[in-house]
Amino acid sequence: MAGSIYGKIFRAATWGESHGRGIGVVIDGCPAGLPLCEADIQKYLNRRRPGQSAYSTPRSEADAVEIMSGVFEGVTTGTPISLMILNTSQRSVDYSEIARLYRPGHADYTFDEKYGFRDYRGGGRSSGRETAARVAAGAVAAEFLKKLGITVQAYTRSVGSIVAEKTDLSEIYENPIYMPDKDAAERASAYLDELRTKGDSSGGVVECIINGMPAGIGETVFDKLDAELAKAVMSIGAVKGVEIGEGMDASLLRGSENNDGFAKTADGIHKTSNHSGGILGGMSDGSQIVLRAAFKPTPSISIPQHTVDKDGNNADITVKGRHDPIIVPRAVVVVESMAALVIADRLLENMTSRLDRIQKFYER
Amino acid sequence: MAGSIYGKIFRAATWGESHGRGIGVVIDGCPAGLPLCEADIQKYLNRRRPGQSAYSTPRSEADAVEIMSGVFEGVTTGTPISLMILNTSQRSVDYSEIARLYRPGHADYTFDEKYGFRDYRGGGRSSGRETAARVAAGAVAAEFLKKLGITVQAYTRSVGSIVAEKTDLSEIYENPIYMPDKDAAERASAYLDELRTKGDSSGGVVECIINGMPAGIGETVFDKLDAELAKAVMSIGAVKGVEIGEGMDASLLRGSENNDGFAKTADGIHKTSNHSGGILGGMSDGSQIVLRAAFKPTPSISIPQHTVDKDGNNADITVKGRHDPIIVPRAVVVVESMAALVIADRLLENMTSRLDRIQKFYER
Amino acid sequence: MAGSIYGKIFRAATWGESHGRGIGVVIDGCPAGLPLCEADIQKYLNRRRPGQSAYSTPRSEADAVEIMSGVFEGVTTGTPISLMILNTSQRSVDYSEIARLYRPGHADYTFDEKYGFRDYRGGGRSSGRETAARVAAGAVAAEFLKKLGITVQAYTRSVGSIVAEKTDLSEIYENPIYMPDKDAAERASAYLDELRTKGDSSGGVVECIINGMPAGIGETVFDKLDAELAKAVMSIGAVKGVEIGEGMDASLLRGSENNDGFAKTADGIHKTSNHSGGILGGMSDGSQIVLRAAFKPTPSISIPQHTVDKDGNNADITVKGRHDPIIVPRAVVVVESMAALVIADRLLENMTSRLDRIQKFYER
Amino acid sequence: MAGSIYGKIFRAATWGESHGRGIGVVIDGCPAGLPLCEADIQKYLNRRRPGQSAYSTPRSEADAVEIMSGVFEGVTTGTPISLMILNTSQRSVDYSEIARLYRPGHADYTFDEKYGFRDYRGGGRSSGRETAARVAAGAVAAEFLKKLGITVQAYTRSVGSIVAEKTDLSEIYENPIYMPDKDAAERASAYLDELRTKGDSSGGVVECIINGMPAGIGETVFDKLDAELAKAVMSIGAVKGVEIGEGMDASLLRGSENNDGFAKTADGIHKTSNHSGGILGGMSDGSQIVLRAAFKPTPSISIPQHTVDKDGNNADITVKGRHDPIIVPRAVVVVESMAALVIADRLLENMTSRLDRIQKFYER
Repeated sequence: MAGSIYGKIFRAATWGESHGRGIGVVIDGCPAGLPLCEADIQKYLNRRRPGQSAYSTPRSEADAVEIMSGVFEGVTTGTPISLMILNTSQRSVDYSEIARLYRPGHADYTFDEKYGFRDYRGGGRSSGRETAARVAAGAVAAEFLKKLGITVQAYTRSVGSIVAEKTDLSEIYENPIYMPDKDAAERASAYLDELRTKGDSSGGVVECIINGMPAGIGETVFDKLDAELAKAVMSIGAVKGVEIGEGMDASLLRGSENNDGFAKTADGIHKTSNHSGGILGGMSDGSQIVLRAAFKPTPSISIPQHTVDKDGNNADITVKGRHDPIIVPRAVVVVESMAALVIADRLLENMTSRLDRIQKFYER
Repeated sequence: MAGSIYGKIFRAATWGESHGRGIGVVIDGCPAGLPLCEADIQKYLNRRRPGQSAYSTPRSEADAVEIMSGVFEGVTTGTPISLMILNTSQRSVDYSEIARLYRPGHADYTFDEKYGFRDYRGGGRSSGRETAARVAAGAVAAEFLKKLGITVQAYTRSVGSIVAEKTDLSEIYENPIYMPDKDAAERASAYLDELRTKGDSSGGVVECIINGMPAGIGETVFDKLDAELAKAVMSIGAVKGVEIGEGMDASLLRGSENNDGFAKTADGIHKTSNHSGGILGGMSDGSQIVLRAAFKPTPSISIPQHTVDKDGNNADITVKGRHDPIIVPRAVVVVESMAALVIADRLLENMTSRLDRIQKFYER
Repeated sequence: MAGSIYGKIFRAATWGESHGRGIGVVIDGCPAGLPLCEADIQKYLNRRRPGQSAYSTPRSEADAVEIMSGVFEGVTTGTPISLMILNTSQRSVDYSEIARLYRPGHADYTFDEKYGFRDYRGGGRSSGRETAARVAAGAVAAEFLKKLGITVQAYTRSVGSIVAEKTDLSEIYENPIYMPDKDAAERASAYLDELRTKGDSSGGVVECIINGMPAGIGETVFDKLDAELAKAVMSIGAVKGVEIGEGMDASLLRGSENNDGFAKTADGIHKTSNHSGGILGGMSDGSQIVLRAAFKPTPSISIPQHTVDKDGNNADITVKGRHDPIIVPRAVVVVESMAALVIADRLLENMTSRLDRIQKFYER
Repeated sequence: MAGSIYGKIFRAATWGESHGRGIGVVIDGCPAGLPLCEADIQKYLNRRRPGQSAYSTPRSEADAVEIMSGVFEGVTTGTPISLMILNTSQRSVDYSEIARLYRPGHADYTFDEKYGFRDYRGGGRSSGRETAARVAAGAVAAEFLKKLGITVQAYTRSVGSIVAEKTDLSEIYENPIYMPDKDAAERASAYLDELRTKGDSSGGVVECIINGMPAGIGETVFDKLDAELAKAVMSIGAVKGVEIGEGMDASLLRGSENNDGFAKTADGIHKTSNHSGGILGGMSDGSQIVLRAAFKPTPSISIPQHTVDKDGNNADITVKGRHDPIIVPRAVVVVESMAALVIADRLLENMTSRLDRIQKFYER
């Protein structure tokens, strides 16, 4: 189990390496009857495509997705949807250094320890390029969720210590950082320009909000909604922390501060605050789901670092080529995609929870 | 899939409610040949048993575990290990208020939304008592790991804003907070005494370290070691954030600060720092694994709160009875247990990763 | 993964050995709201209980099931249902021979090869007693199916070469063979009496019919309805063949003989024959599902056989004690149980197959 | 879960329709270090390629497989292996009749019942063409098994009532029926010629033998080796019965006839006969594994049949085009492939069964 299949009902099996023939995903379990075309998926892929701004690698990939199966006359058939993106930019470059030296902060060493060797071309399977397949799958999940009135939206909450102080969703696509705060985005850009000049990089935080969730979605013990979100988001390379609602800061609060009251209004029962981030006891509570993921700084930096080679000799390494000075902006749509996959899967699973609803379902 | 089964190879299926007949777990996939007796498991259970200190509920449960199957002549047989803990303290109390009102911060509302009703006796399945079954399973996993030279140790890192400033492992069991810092533990005790007087509660952070891990354990895409740890730990009720290594603070760092170099010494290749928390690219990197979980404050407080009843009428609630003013100390062993389950499962899965090792395994 | 958990959504995790403390099952994923009490389950267990007739072992077990969790005020809560049957008849007997010698036709040798040793008391985990846990789980599944208008009924089709020539369902419980043909049952009884006198045993066939299935249930490639039934039924110890509809004889037919036509009547579309046994392309076709399982003869016979001991010395063995001269009658309810588990799981999974139905489900 | 993913550790996710862009499979969990090239896989695919003989459809497909990922410098990397076969022969034909009418014996009706509509071009996902992806995956599994000294070989046991009376493996590829008996193959050919003239078809039986299995492989309760084989083989479209060893005929035998004795020779412990077909208690017993699958006759026949159209009107149908008069010869390699997938998966799972072997594995 090399761990490249996500989900229980709505399942995504991804494949592909950075510098191989291409990358792709097979989605097994997408419901039949969903309108789907390549353009629906392409718009998500374009958000993580390299070469979009000064803060992403200049590698130029069209990242054009092809639907290979599972769609007939414009709608999903219920059978596996195979999506493929051919690599077009795998230039013949000199990999001799990366093949020989373990780059700090990368998976070179651990890959060799696990498998005995690795596809060293551009990071192989542990390249950020792997996330394109997640985005393709997530796009399908997001289209499905829209049909149920559920939207998933991520954006950059912070870059280094520069935090977006407001959440102006209309601003997100207006700046290359995907921050919902124009001023903070400008300061972040200046900071990243400075780091790039120094050959250094920055971490940051992506926040994701989910609206339209019915209450009661998620399972009650190991497969809690927040647990599945944590796994899905932590599985994105470079994520080192995941928070729901108050997150780590919940540890600083008192019960009287952290508890959300309930109130009845004309619209029904709702919470009077949302410290919980939309999840109680592992199930959605009907309010907005709020999660955050902390990304470490891009490990590829042009500042010399200490390392060893495959034979165990000490060495210095300076990672060549131009690299994103920050992972976060291109990761925004990846977080969104993973969240969409989780929500889709949990919604489907939840259909089986009550006899009365199952009986009604089968009364045809 | 009510989500009460954890794992792929080493699997734990838990059952039981706070005020039912008992709780338990069936472990399917524990390797044959592991010495195991009830006392091995009991010592873990005793660490989360109520009534241990001033900071845990005075409910008195022996929490005596019985091995019902899977052990023969003192060793595991490879077949399911059924562990049972009978409830002995489910007094007949008046549940009419809790049956009618949704307690803020609890799963009462979401349970009703999911299933249409709930077992309201003491929290039912969403009671903290559910974690006793996790600990029983985790104890078996931990015993297995010891045989491979791997140890898992958790402790309290912080209570509210009081942080343990040193990590003196010999101190952990010397204070009721399970903090590895005597002074911090004393300050935390004073803070908790104050909160209890006010009928309020505090959050906190549990930290867990894992030593002895070989490098290369964990799968490379969705089932990364850190992703599985995040899920397992976030699935503990009341956890709102999970961190690996630098965690959320990785977002504040630069690549030149966060990357861990490699060096060769007489002992082999090792990292020169451990910002990664022992995991690179989803696989163990041979250094100590470090994870943290933030727990929200106990939601049961005796301060009046706004809520609604099942029929949607606004109401006030004051949660009666004595409750732990903090979840953290009793949760320490729960975090340890979940981590042990994850590590055991990943180690078993990893055995199948390389043809050369498989060939050697079957050369008998 | 010792393989003691069945199912994807409606899951059953069984445990227990023949001569340990007891046996049981944890059901995770049973929908909430199903009325359930111990008597509902007991009536299924009583059908496989030993000591029922001259053709079953005289071991006297009450096989009294206890519901340990998951039921509140008489209905299932949606959380795990733990069912336990304590062993009461594990007399202290002399196992020295069985511990030392490999019984032909039993799992003694293969267990030792897999695990290095075995719980040799009465067959341990590979005892037929393990099936009691399957029946307990199957009883719950069957109760669930009844609520959807689906019934599962098994009976003995043949004993050795004596075949039931009619299918009189009212006769099944009127004879100890559970055959739907009184005359055949009498001839079978005479044959079994003769075998028992000789210390020999007989094989036989169990047939199972499922009525009330909606069309379209089952997945289309690997997880076909017939594939899942085949696995579930073949997993019963002693089953050596599984058939759907015409079964092995389909190989003898021509397309013009084997194809079932379709016709429209006042009741809707139906098939004009049922060679397919109710399954087409891995999905239920709306007609009666018909499956058969061939059981080998009881391997425990009192006729001397050649074998070896654990140390590899040639030896003779005469299996002592009284044993069922045939497995089939007590296995009837086991086949029924496994079929019920499969159908319940597939029905739940099928709810997620169409967007239009999912949308309608969530329009609340 | 549309059910297109097979396996637990060695997993295959297939995709593709008869007349779409192509078909393929993603294999997740193949061990690293296995030499693999397209020719290794192509030779298996060629055995099921259409147009091979008078008894297969004249559709001409190159069925050329491409390795899209997971292989680096000629060996598998441990990451997903994506295999793709582009369709080249999806001629523009008139599907109006098949779109409207339910073909007897096909999945047209059940697909519509499950999903509300279907991709009617050439059977879509339920076409026999789907099995090409199984063969591609099975080829990889078979190459892996060879490295462990395990071989899987299938052949045609019978065509209608014509049974191969000997098992001459050298004869299999010498006749278009893939029968291990030259005389029987000639009689089968004559029978099939006759049926084809009449527009009719025949069923048959495929037998599969597995040599080189170590003893003790397979799990002991639900995931028995024979149970997994039964599922895998029954999941092939058109299979209606599966047998292990004596199969259905075990029901006719007495214990004294069916039990296999054990004996010690210079080579170790072996069985003195093999009625069990190499499996005892769900685990391999070290002797040859023998399984059989009964295939129904090709449902597409040119003899008129009664059916209904999508709107429920009675109609007659004559399936047009040339079709295989028998499925069996092309299915031989499909059975072999499914068996190889099962064995590979079970062998990997079995590595985790014993503490002593796990300890030795990790002593590095």
